[in-house]
Amino acid sequence: MPDAPPGTSTISGTTRLYVVLGDPVAQVRAPGLLNDLFARTARDAVLVPVHVGPDGLADVMRGLRRMRNLDGILVTVPHKIEVCRYADLLGPAAEVAGSANALRRNPDGTWLAENFDGAGFVHGLRRHGQDPTGATVALAGAGGAGRAVAAALLDAGVARLRLYDPDPDRRADVRARLDARWPGRVTAAAEGYFDGDGVDIAVNATPLGMSPGDPLPFDLGRLPRTCLVADIIMKPAETALLDAARRSGRPVVHGRHMLDSQVLLYEDFFALHAPEKNGRWEP
Amino acid sequence: MPDAPPGTSTISGTTRLYVVLGDPVAQVRAPGLLNDLFARTARDAVLVPVHVGPDGLADVMRGLRRMRNLDGILVTVPHKIEVCRYADLLGPAAEVAGSANALRRNPDGTWLAENFDGAGFVHGLRRHGQDPTGATVALAGAGGAGRAVAAALLDAGVARLRLYDPDPDRRADVRARLDARWPGRVTAAAEGYFDGDGVDIAVNATPLGMSPGDPLPFDLGRLPRTCLVADIIMKPAETALLDAARRSGRPVVHGRHMLDSQVLLYEDFFALHAPEKNGRWEP
Repeated sequence: MPDAPPGTSTISGTTRLYVVLGDPVAQVRAPGLLNDLFARTARDAVLVPVHVGPDGLADVMRGLRRMRNLDGILVTVPHKIEVCRYADLLGPAAEVAGSANALRRNPDGTWLAENFDGAGFVHGLRRHGQDPTGATVALAGAGGAGRAVAAALLDAGVARLRLYDPDPDRRADVRARLDARWPGRVTAAAEGYFDGDGVDIAVNATPLGMSPGDPLPFDLGRLPRTCLVADIIMKPAETALLDAARRSGRPVVHGRHMLDSQVLLYEDFFALHAPEKNGRWEP
Repeated sequence: MPDAPPGTSTISGTTRLYVVLGDPVAQVRAPGLLNDLFARTARDAVLVPVHVGPDGLADVMRGLRRMRNLDGILVTVPHKIEVCRYADLLGPAAEVAGSANALRRNPDGTWLAENFDGAGFVHGLRRHGQDPTGATVALAGAGGAGRAVAAALLDAGVARLRLYDPDPDRRADVRARLDARWPGRVTAAAEGYFDGDGVDIAVNATPLGMSPGDPLPFDLGRLPRTCLVADIIMKPAETALLDAARRSGRPVVHGRHMLDSQVLLYEDFFALHAPEKNGRWEP
């Protein structure tokens, strides 16, 4: 019954579990998106939010792995990097990014971590008619999401990626990881050295913009007038950055597209396809 | 909106969590009962089943306590005794029974464990017009639920309680606990010594009857023709014991009444009362 109305009244002892981990967690959109997907694909499954701080992540992950009816874990800020320690296997995007936002239980009981932020971001760009192939990109933020977006952009064929992050160790580490896989295409610097010359796509992957009064993650005035400006922040939908970019006449891509696109990818990762027809042919 | 249709579509990042722990867990009725209660009382909360074996209970409890949006834990077979180790405080029924079936997070962050099996059972008896005050009771099973039912029956004023359990250490321990609180009213013996003489109420609190082909927990032929026969097993609803009791003309009480009555008690324990009216008087 893919069209049956979803309900907590459908939750029973046989329902399979998925969680989304975050701190904070009130802002996450995964419950709405995934529970809708479960209803559409007629799965007896539910995703619930789990609020856990960095000091509790180890205990929560150990506990979750012991829950026999738990099939998947989504991960958001600030756990995307640390959570990789609790997986048995890393998928290719998680491997290169050193961060993950989804884990699944494999049939043999092992847990596989993968990162769909980058693929979701690139998918979202393409749905807006923006092919990053050959582009010059400026990316602010080398955290869990930023490095995943960087890896996916390089994988999608961007010519040059300029990475900005205030933490010198972090940006050197991420640059080295990316350079090992895609040599000669990545530079990394502190924000003060932001270089907007010739940039086709500028991306904010920092938390700047979540709180009112945050400074902009980079100086729009240094970017070409035609530069596409993208933000991965979902709440607020209209960050100060996107607002300023739009007022300056530049095209923008909102954060929600990164997540909306990921739902399609989760459908594969968690094997949540709608049940096939029973094969009878009734003309 | 107490009458709004419940839905997994109502689950968001702000939703508070409750779980029910068991092994197996497929048979539990708590999700239906509690999610209905949350909907009726307009709570942004959901209860989900968690399947955990005895070897995983410690890890799961440690993980659950770290989840900041988790407010309550219900507990079923086989964890009711062991789970007391992970509570900071025991309520009076849990203390005397040495088992718990519900834990809540107190405002100060501590976890309180209490046992509602016994109170639910007695409440269910009374709803059937059966007051146990002054009765002679035969009770088979001194496990997590059996000892809680025993304590509640003694608290309700039964005159004599005959406890039967095949494990000599367990039945001696439980008898000693109960005798310390209610001196001279409890005897304990192995099943082979079952004494039905003068019994007003006979209760099955063993798992016998969950699987087809299980032997009866006690010999109906030894009980008076008017003896009330109660079972705490919920699935199947009609156990072989209740079926045989009914065919012999004896009154019966089904297992589901113990749980249905507990929902009312959970409403207090978890402070899940419907929101009060806003106080405006509009004649």
